[in-house]
Parts: sequence; structure tokens; C-alpha cells
Amino acid sequence: MTAGIIGATGYAGVELVRLLTGHPEIKKLILSSVSFEGERIEDIYPNFIGALSGPLVKAEEVIASSDVVFSALPHAVGESYAAACMEKKIHFIDLSADFRFDDNEEVYSAWYGKTYKYPELHKKSIYGLPELNRNKIKELSSKEAVVIGNPGCYPTGPSIGVFPAIAKGLWDKSSSSPIIADAASGTSGGGREPSRSFHYSECADSVSPYKVACHRHSPEISHNFAVMAKRTGVPSPQVIFTPHLAPMVRGILSTVYIPLSREWRVTTENKEKQEVSVMPPSKEIETKTAEINKVYTDFYKDEPFVRIMKEGVYPSTNRVRHSNYCDISVNIDINGSTLIVITAIDNMIKGAAGQAVQNMNILFGFDEKTGLSAIPMLF
Amino acid sequence: MTAGIIGATGYAGVELVRLLTGHPEIKKLILSSVSFEGERIEDIYPNFIGALSGPLVKAEEVIASSDVVFSALPHAVGESYAAACMEKKIHFIDLSADFRFDDNEEVYSAWYGKTYKYPELHKKSIYGLPELNRNKIKELSSKEAVVIGNPGCYPTGPSIGVFPAIAKGLWDKSSSSPIIADAASGTSGGGREPSRSFHYSECADSVSPYKVACHRHSPEISHNFAVMAKRTGVPSPQVIFTPHLAPMVRGILSTVYIPLSREWRVTTENKEKQEVSVMPPSKEIETKTAEINKVYTDFYKDEPFVRIMKEGVYPSTNRVRHSNYCDISVNIDINGSTLIVITAIDNMIKGAAGQAVQNMNILFGFDEKTGLSAIPMLF
Amino acid sequence: MTAGIIGATGYAGVELVRLLTGHPEIKKLILSSVSFEGERIEDIYPNFIGALSGPLVKAEEVIASSDVVFSALPHAVGESYAAACMEKKIHFIDLSADFRFDDNEEVYSAWYGKTYKYPELHKKSIYGLPELNRNKIKELSSKEAVVIGNPGCYPTGPSIGVFPAIAKGLWDKSSSSPIIADAASGTSGGGREPSRSFHYSECADSVSPYKVACHRHSPEISHNFAVMAKRTGVPSPQVIFTPHLAPMVRGILSTVYIPLSREWRVTTENKEKQEVSVMPPSKEIETKTAEINKVYTDFYKDEPFVRIMKEGVYPSTNRVRHSNYCDISVNIDINGSTLIVITAIDNMIKGAAGQAVQNMNILFGFDEKTGLSAIPMLF
Amino acid sequence: MTAGIIGATGYAGVELVRLLTGHPEIKKLILSSVSFEGERIEDIYPNFIGALSGPLVKAEEVIASSDVVFSALPHAVGESYAAACMEKKIHFIDLSADFRFDDNEEVYSAWYGKTYKYPELHKKSIYGLPELNRNKIKELSSKEAVVIGNPGCYPTGPSIGVFPAIAKGLWDKSSSSPIIADAASGTSGGGREPSRSFHYSECADSVSPYKVACHRHSPEISHNFAVMAKRTGVPSPQVIFTPHLAPMVRGILSTVYIPLSREWRVTTENKEKQEVSVMPPSKEIETKTAEINKVYTDFYKDEPFVRIMKEGVYPSTNRVRHSNYCDISVNIDINGSTLIVITAIDNMIKGAAGQAVQNMNILFGFDEKTGLSAIPMLF
Repeated sequence: MTAGIIGATGYAGVELVRLLTGHPEIKKLILSSVSFEGERIEDIYPNFIGALSGPLVKAEEVIASSDVVFSALPHAVGESYAAACMEKKIHFIDLSADFRFDDNEEVYSAWYGKTYKYPELHKKSIYGLPELNRNKIKELSSKEAVVIGNPGCYPTGPSIGVFPAIAKGLWDKSSSSPIIADAASGTSGGGREPSRSFHYSECADSVSPYKVACHRHSPEISHNFAVMAKRTGVPSPQVIFTPHLAPMVRGILSTVYIPLSREWRVTTENKEKQEVSVMPPSKEIETKTAEINKVYTDFYKDEPFVRIMKEGVYPSTNRVRHSNYCDISVNIDINGSTLIVITAIDNMIKGAAGQAVQNMNILFGFDEKTGLSAIPMLF
Repeated sequence: MTAGIIGATGYAGVELVRLLTGHPEIKKLILSSVSFEGERIEDIYPNFIGALSGPLVKAEEVIASSDVVFSALPHAVGESYAAACMEKKIHFIDLSADFRFDDNEEVYSAWYGKTYKYPELHKKSIYGLPELNRNKIKELSSKEAVVIGNPGCYPTGPSIGVFPAIAKGLWDKSSSSPIIADAASGTSGGGREPSRSFHYSECADSVSPYKVACHRHSPEISHNFAVMAKRTGVPSPQVIFTPHLAPMVRGILSTVYIPLSREWRVTTENKEKQEVSVMPPSKEIETKTAEINKVYTDFYKDEPFVRIMKEGVYPSTNRVRHSNYCDISVNIDINGSTLIVITAIDNMIKGAAGQAVQNMNILFGFDEKTGLSAIPMLF
Repeated sequence: MTAGIIGATGYAGVELVRLLTGHPEIKKLILSSVSFEGERIEDIYPNFIGALSGPLVKAEEVIASSDVVFSALPHAVGESYAAACMEKKIHFIDLSADFRFDDNEEVYSAWYGKTYKYPELHKKSIYGLPELNRNKIKELSSKEAVVIGNPGCYPTGPSIGVFPAIAKGLWDKSSSSPIIADAASGTSGGGREPSRSFHYSECADSVSPYKVACHRHSPEISHNFAVMAKRTGVPSPQVIFTPHLAPMVRGILSTVYIPLSREWRVTTENKEKQEVSVMPPSKEIETKTAEINKVYTDFYKDEPFVRIMKEGVYPSTNRVRHSNYCDISVNIDINGSTLIVITAIDNMIKGAAGQAVQNMNILFGFDEKTGLSAIPMLF
Repeated sequence: MTAGIIGATGYAGVELVRLLTGHPEIKKLILSSVSFEGERIEDIYPNFIGALSGPLVKAEEVIASSDVVFSALPHAVGESYAAACMEKKIHFIDLSADFRFDDNEEVYSAWYGKTYKYPELHKKSIYGLPELNRNKIKELSSKEAVVIGNPGCYPTGPSIGVFPAIAKGLWDKSSSSPIIADAASGTSGGGREPSRSFHYSECADSVSPYKVACHRHSPEISHNFAVMAKRTGVPSPQVIFTPHLAPMVRGILSTVYIPLSREWRVTTENKEKQEVSVMPPSKEIETKTAEINKVYTDFYKDEPFVRIMKEGVYPSTNRVRHSNYCDISVNIDINGSTLIVITAIDNMIKGAAGQAVQNMNILFGFDEKTGLSAIPMLF
């Protein structure tokens, strides 16, 4: 099988190249780049020296020669390639934001400043978060060529981390309080283009927030929660999302605060003595945390890439580095009223290229772990 | 004036040494260390070569020769030195947790596992957060020798960041939702002793949470909020605090989520169209944010070390690095219901040694910026 | 085939676990650890969660059940396991220093402070640098069980980088000047045990030398050069080796200075005008550099893991990260008298576990790249 | 006194701003910037918020209002400002390369591709390395306005490290071997402008060489050695200089290899037994190292910013960070024939802005440590 990658020289693109080079079902790779047409990938990324031959070509040539096409272009420039693939009846997996909002053009336009050029494509495209839409992907792709909107890097962790809380009634559906996702990302999320924000001397050894209360991944997170809420038959939660830049290359750590429903809340004895709890976690909190851990473990028992940590073990970005895993830990705050879910992913793998390969595996009926079995590299 | 430092070879202690060496009112420094008695500071920290003479002595000698004593010992070992200083009628500034809880021994014991040996000292000790207790420090110290409990590194930023919200009615006092402080610290917060958690190969290039919902600084944050709430005549807020370790040496960035009171909330038009807001921030949110910015700017207009950022400028840890500043930005989430306050401090300066020097300056009536005028080093 | 790893929980050991888990010829892994016997690898390294089952056992059980044994123990504790393997007639690949000095016990003892317990083992053990001893390994292992002394991390790069210069007459065999290898290593070279030197707060953001002119890898480098010199029929060069610690987790970059022989030296016109050359590189230097590049490229044309960079491309540690490659660039200094060879390896792969797997592949006649085909991860 | 800084928004410029803000003799600062004229320094560097007032002006205004002018412009654009200052009879301290080569326009042109516009200025400008030219600076500046060519960041350490070896006969003047300076710099040396080389995702966690055998600081190092050689009455040494980029923000660590003269060489007994020495350092080497340490200590006993380390203590960049120190250790290789001198500086302080302030202090007869007394920040 030949896989094509349009936009192969950006970070997500080149990570796809790396992953697909090791994928046993892919016999050939064909790559395009507007900026570097005619050059070889190893001229741009010397780590590839000796690993791949063949020059970078045009997007059209990629589509013409491939059995599946990945697009790692910026948003709003790849729709026509999706259309071309549909015409040729081959699957198109898009890593940009273009197909992440289904047919909700209003939200897409408000955040990305563009309109849909091929609205009909968006009616049947699928948001490619396997933990949410695996069956939908399987079903539709068994019938016809499919456009997959690969999820954003930030939405992936909090979505996987919150789904069980919504689906299993942990989340307080009557709460007016938002679900808060506070996340820190590595610099590779900012891509390959040099800029002040990612200039070593100014971002090393420092943590900073950015796009507070106005990041484009906010509506995607809201949308994912809303989809799960709708499936569960509960109202959609309000969402706050705050991204931070941390001095690391890869990884996203998300800490998500979810108001607990009455039946899952813990009323600690502490509270009787003091106005608010300022005491260490009670036994009851520990017990309830273990129960929630079980709910999560059961919920994800068949997911190949979701790992629920034992109590006392927290996710960290280096423990998922270079893997497609999403690690999760669940905790209850000392007041007993909030579920604190922590998730870690490699933003370039589960947050981008790896999830795209996972989607390809689903589309073609391969074992979902094919080409994605790398053990995370702690150091 | 001679200043003494007990426990001078830990990170907070040695940072005190560095700051006080440059303090124009301090003519002499006398240092103690249990682990390195008889050695010189430059034998342990070669950066000090040529800067200081004299060997490390015993704590008792420090007290005997000093006009003010700083203690940078671990908690529960310095109380007797405080007592000795009170007897000698000299001020004692304690960087451990021992004097951070006033006479609330129950809370201290629950978190630190120790009891008060000199309970009467805790009745008149002052929690040394100048932005909360400056007047109290000034007043009491004009009359007698004083024990100052220097704040913990984590509580400093969120406390300063939340005080105006409580005092000025931004915080929704009727809310059952907690105030959530999500923070990332550099490794220097973990001190000088090597351990797995701070082993370069395992903490570099990675972000991880720790002591989720059970960190000792939780009750201190709660307590500070409660003090301000009491002064304002409103109930105490619930607090959730989650610490993270980031791959940087210095700095704490805190992102704090505060439910907005009805009069400050923004009801966006977005909400009428959609169940929850998934639209970019409205003009009304921008307007209200500017108003809140003004509230904060006014509240802190006389504080020498609090800087409120203009809209669109966010704090980052490198912008306060090596300074005593606490930088703050205020934001409203797209739903219009939560105030997002972001604070940055240098955990070793405003979060420890710098704040201790600031307290000394207040105690002795020096200009508060004396010895603390270093411009932050961005890079 | 079952592979056993003794000392599986140190950094080199756990990297072997990771690599062998993905090796298609290895069906089963059996691991031992003195410190963690009975625990599972994922309890110590949470990145392994879900990847491996089975508890850590005793070294004896590893030997009993394996077809090949790797030992990643510290030096001077694994000789008896080598003896046991020889008795059982299975290959033993030792990552410690014990078998790196052939039967030169005097040098080994001088640097490591231990004597040989099984001197006869050292008479037929082979130093496992494939670029030096591939044929010897192949030949002997076809006849009997073999002990391989896997090279040290530092010696690997400079040795591969200098061999062609000695073998092809570039090195000035009549020079009294030493060959100088100046190298910088990442922190993983210091292993898993926390210590001041590898404490994040003190080694981050800083470069420092250590064991200047007295590092244990010096005699190994000298020995390798001497072996190649002997094969070539020239005298052994003097060697200076200086290690540095750089704030990165993985990788060794070595810059090696080799006096050029008369026939390869460039006498620049610059020199006629000035006492010493202070002018930019002449055309002649560029020409000669290209010739030397060709010598190197030819010398290593069949080596699967040696990559000679084109002129103007320099190795860097991130361009070999997580791969078994040794990247090399060759340069001539502006005076025309010194060859500057730069090499980069991943210290944990080509400098330890990867080279050990390469040796296993040679021992068993597998394609040498089996299990080692990972593309380096630039970021 | 008013100090002016032309080019105040580059890294060297802004570091000058920071240092001079704390200089007790400077009452006023006036700053210029072409790129940001009219803005304030805090708009570009938010760490300066609250520290400085007044907008950035034109270079001409700076000259008109200042008693001393610093220029932190790129090379070849500041000569006319030097001329203007000479006309106004005020000292001009240039941080570019323009005045580092005295009147040797040939070498300057060969490396920087520009010619001298005001050749007469170069006849009396002084290369501002105080350890080399303090007296010259004092003498000339007592008579007239002076142009100081502030040294390059890389040449500073190796020059200070090698001077005693040349002046005191340690260096083998009859050797045909070069003095080799192998150095690693932090990223701030690359300045403020974003580029691929300094893009966090591609330079973090990696060491790489650059401009091997062709860096512009090579001729400056050669020149410094030649000046000292001439003073001593010995021939000029050949020099090799190799720069590396290390993943740290500040600091340059240089390891310099100097062939020892016959009288200082150690002929170890090892050598009699083996062709080359592969044994640990002999007692004789330790003794001779101590003697050389004494030579260095005596040579620099009056230098305020040179610190010779005790045996066994090595310089590291974090031990001089944020200070004007140059730390030095001396070592002899195990063959006894090469002196290995290691130096560490903060590239932005002793390697740029700090040295410029030191030069100003000399020019005006201030104590040389004025404004430069900061203790290095280890962490």
C-alpha cells in the first residue's frame, strides 16, 4: 500500500513520515511540500539521512499515486485535496482544523476566519477521535471513501479524560460551574517556523500562558464534551481552556477540573468543623477515588492507547513520550466536590501524527496498534 | 547591622546570603549550617568564591552576634531559635512552615505532623505576606521583637492574585464552586537534596503533577483567602490547589480560576444562540476585562512589587526571574462567568528569600525595595 | 529466541529492554534486578505500563532460561555470570567495562581498582566495536560461545571517527602531538542514581567539564587507536580525552583533533604573509577537505550505522537521537595542519544498548539493522 | 553622569541597560533603537516594566546627551557614531567587531567583508580586554577621548586562560602544534533574532558544532595570543578554535589545549613501560599541576574578575552566571605534555556588557567592580 503525505515538511508531516516509514502495511511513501519541492526530506531534516529516497513532489502527484492521503497543511488550504481524494475514492486524513467541526461552519469561521469551500464534504466527514467515533469511522469507511478530521493536539487529552465522567454520571450535569482544562504544551506544538515565542533564549527555563480564554482549541473541546453529553442525554457543560507553553519539546499535560455530581461527591467530616475543608484528604475521599478509578478503568478497558494510572501514580509527559498513549489519573479534591483528571499525551503522536495513523488503521481494518507499538521513552 | 542566617546552605538560605550580601544596610553576615559547620560557603557553592569570608558556625553563635535572624531550616526544628531571639529581643524571620498558621495548631499538625513546642510564640507571630499584613508587621514591630512566618512559595502568587477579587466583590461569595489554583513550579522549589524526582534525566523535558489534592500549601492558600474574606465580611471560599513540576530551575506560574459575582459576570449574546458559549470572546468581555484590570491596578497601586500587566500581556516566569516582583494578568473566560488570574513569581525570591528581605525592610523601616531592586532577567 | 538481561533496571539495562521488545527475532525477554527483584519493570519505569509482563527475577534464572544474555551491571560484578554463560555455551554481551581491555589486566586494574577473577575469559573475549572487530566476532562466534565487551559510551564516537585517519595515512604518525578528543555527554550517561552532579537545579542550563585528564574511558580510547595503529603498521598515537556534561538527556558529541600527515597537510598562501594563518579557509583547504570526506565515505561505505555528512553539514546529537547511527563530519583547520573530526551518537543506543543489540545481531547472523532501524528523532 | 546606549534592544544592548541601571555612577540612561524608535524598552522586554521610563530615541540624540556612549550595533554600522563621539570628545565603547583588530584592516575585511570608513580611528582605538590592555586604556584615556573595541564573547575566556602560559613560558614556543580552543556557548550568543538554529524545538536537548574552522572569532583569538607572544618576545602560536552550541541560555565554557614547554613537561614513568601513557595521572603530574596553578594564581592576583580554581574544582557556566567573573582551572594531561586550561564566563556579561562596563570603569577611574559586584547565580 502506498501512503501519501501532503505538507510533509512541517512537524506533524515529518512525524507522519517517521511513523509511516516503520508501518508494516505501508510499502511506499510519497511526499509533497510546497516550500521544498524537488528537494529530499533529508536535506531539510538531516536526521533522515539514509532513511528515505525520492524527492518531494507536488500534492497532485501524491494524490495520483497513493492509496491513502494524509494532509498536514495549515487550515483552510487542503479542502480541495480532500475533494480530489473523494473523487478518486481514497480516504483522506486531514491534520488541520478544517474537518474538526462537522458542518458547524459558523463556529469554524468565527475562530479560523474562513468559510467552507466544499460544504458537502463537511456533512459526511468524521471527527477522528477513535475513543469517541471509532464505530462511526469503521461503519462509514466500509462503504465509501472518508474524510477524517484528525483532532487538535490540546483537545485530545481533556476529551478522553472527561468522557467517562460525562457518560457515567460523575459530572454534575446540574452544575453551573464550568469544566476547566488547564494545559501545558511543549514547543513542538508551535511548529517549525521560527518566532520570538519559540526562540530558545526567551522560552527556555520559563512557563507562560498564551491565548488565555481565546485559544482556537476551546470550541473543539466544548464540541467534544457536547457530543458525549448528547449521547448520554445530559446538557452540554461549559468549558474553560487555558494553554501554557512549557520548556520542553514534546508533550501535553492537562489538568481538568470536573464538578462532581451529588451521588459522587464526598461530604467530609472536616467540613463540619471548619467553614471549608483545610484538612488532608479523608479516608472517604480515598475510597471514592478508588471507585472512580474503577469506573475509568472499565470504561476504557478495550482502548489500546488509554492507560489509567494506579492511585498515587500521576501521568507525566515523558512517560508517554514518543508513544500513542494517553495516560490518565483520577483524583478528588480535599473538599470532596471536584474530580481532578490529569492526562498526558505526546502532542506529536497521540496529539497529531500517531492519532492519524491510528485512524488509518481503523479505516483499513488493521490492528489499531500497527506501527504504533513504540514503548514511551522516559529519558 | 549584622544579619544572621540559620540554615544558610539550603537553597532558600543561600539565596538569602546572596541577597543580603548586596543589601546596603547589612554590614555583616553570619551564617550557620549543621551539615557544613566549619566549612565556608564557597566550598559548598563555588559560585561564592571570593565573595564571602568566614566559616559556617553554630546557630547559637548566629543568634548571639546578630541584630536580626533569618531561619531557613526545615519545618519543626527552628522554634527554639525563635524563642531565643524573642528572649534576646531581636526579630526572627522564619522561612519554614512553622509560623504560617498563626495559632491554628490543628491544621499545622494535620499537614506537618508536628505540634507547637512554644505555643505562646504562635499567638503573636505574624504571617509575613506584606500585601496582606504590612501594617500589622509595622505596628507590632515598632513595639517589640517579632516572629515572622515567611509565606510558602506556592501560596504567595495565588494569594496576591485573589485578594482584590475577594476584597472588591469580583468573587461570587454565594458560589459553591471552589477557587482553583493550578500552578507550575521550577525544580529549585524541591531544594538541594538530590532525589529521583529532581534527577535531570527524569525531570528534564517533561511536565508532571504531584501531590494532587494533598499538597501542604493547600491549607495555607485557603487560610490566606479566608483572612481576606473575613476582613471583607464575606464567607471563606473553597480552594483547590494543584502543583506541577516544570523543567525550569526557578519560578512559579499560577493560573487561578475565580467564579465571578453576578454584577461582574458577562452574559454574552453567544449564549442565546448556543447552549454554551463556543464563540470567541465578545466585545463585552473585553470591556469588562479592562474594568477588572483597573480594579486590580488601583488595589495594588502602592505595592512596590506587584505589577499588573496590560491587556494582552501575560506574566511568564522568566519576566520576573531573579526579582521580587509578582506579575499579574486578569482575564475573563469566553462564557463570561469566571475570572482567570495569572501570576508569576520567582519562587526563590518573592516566594522565599526576597520576601524575607522585604519583611526585614518593613520590620526596620527601610525602604521596602532596599536590596531588592534587581531588574528581572528575561534571559 | 529468549534474551536475558541482567541488571535490567539501570538506564542501559532498561534501554536494552526497550530495544529488544521491538526486536523481531526475540520472542521472549527475561529480566533480573538485584534492587527490584519480584517487582515488575513498570513499577519502576511507568512508561512501560502495559508493555511487558512478568516480574524481575534473579540473575541465575535469567541465565538458565536464555539463549543469549546481556549484562548491564556495574563493572567488576558480572564476571561470574559470563563464566556461567560460557559453561552453558551461550553468548554473553557485557555492557560494563570488565571485558573492554582484553587481557590487559594492568590497565583495567589501574583505572577500575579491581582484578580479573576469571583471567582465561579475558583471553578470548572480544571488544564489541563492530566497526573494528566485526570479522573477529563473526569468526569466533561461529565456533563457540563468546564474551563480548561492549564499548564505553565515550570511546565509541572518537574511535569510529579516527580509524580512517589512522588506517588511510591521514594521521601524522611522526607527530609528537596527541590526538585530542573533546566530548560533551548528556546526563543519562550518569545513570539512574540521583546525585548532586545530576540534580536538575544544578546541572540545568550549564556546561561543565569533569574528570579532566583522568576519565576511565581515556585508556579505552587509547587502546582502540593503538589496535588500529598496529593493524596499519604505524606507532600508537598519544591521546587526550576531556569529557563535559551538557544539559541534555541523551547524546555524545565529540570533536577530535588529529595532526595531519605531511601529504595531507595544506600549506596555505596565508602563511607566507603572516606568521600564523588568521585568514578564512582557502580554496585549497576546501578541496582537500572534500578529498578527505571521500576517504571517509569509502572507508565506511558498508557500515550500516556510520553516516558521513556532506561538507557544511555537522552532526548534532538530536540528529542521531534514539538511533544507532554514528554521524561524522571531517574538516581541516585554517592552518591546514589539523584534521577536525566531529562525531555524534546517542550515548544510550550506539553508545550502549543499541551497540549491544548490533553485536547480538552479528553473533547470530541476523541482518545487523534488525531491531535498530528507528529513524532518529530530531525533536 | 549620563550613559548612552546605541542599539539598546539587542541582547547585548539590553544587558547593558540592565547593568547600567544598577551602576551607582550612572544617574541617567539614554537609549536608542532603529527598530523600535519611540517605543519604550518595557514594550519590547516586559521584564523591564516599571524599571525605566523614557522612549527609545535616535542615535544622534544619544550622542548629544551622553557623557559616555556604548554601541551595541552589528558590525560595520557604528563607525560614524564613534567618529561623532571623538569629535564631541567623549569615550565610545563599541561592542561590535569593528574595533577589535586595531588597524589590521586586511584581517577585518577578510572575515567581516567590510572596509574601514574612518581608518584613523582604528589607529588609536584600544582592544578592550582589561587583562591585556588595562594600562593602555588608563594611559590614553587620561589624555583624550578613546574608542574601545570590546572583545568578542568567545575570545575573552581562551585569551585570559592562555596569557599566563605564554607570558610565563609554560607554552612550548618551539612547538609546531597549535593551541586548540574548543568552546560551547549558550544560545543568547546568537542574539535576539529568531532563526532555525535557535528554534527551541531544534536546539533544545542537543549539542552541535558550527562554523568549524571558520568562525570570525578565530582571528581575534589568534591576534590576542600574538600580542601576548610579542610582549613576551616569543613567536605567535597557531590557533584552532571550534565553537559549539549548547542547550543553555547563557555562558561559554572553553577547554584549551596548550603544548607544554620542555621545562614544564612531565615525563611519566608510565611511558617507559608503554608506548603511550594509558595509566591514571602520576604523582608527578599532580605536583606539576599545583605549580602551574600557583603560576596562574600569581599572574592574576590583582585581577578583580579572574578566579583560579583550586585543584579538583572545575569551572562551570552556572558558577559564573550573571557575573563578570572568568573562572579558570589548569590541568595536565596524563601524557604530561599538554596543559589543559578550562575557562568559564557569562557570555553576556564578561563576554559582552559586563566587560564593556568594566572598560567604562577603567576609562573614568572608578573602582573596576563598580556595578559589577553581583554574585554568580548557581541556580
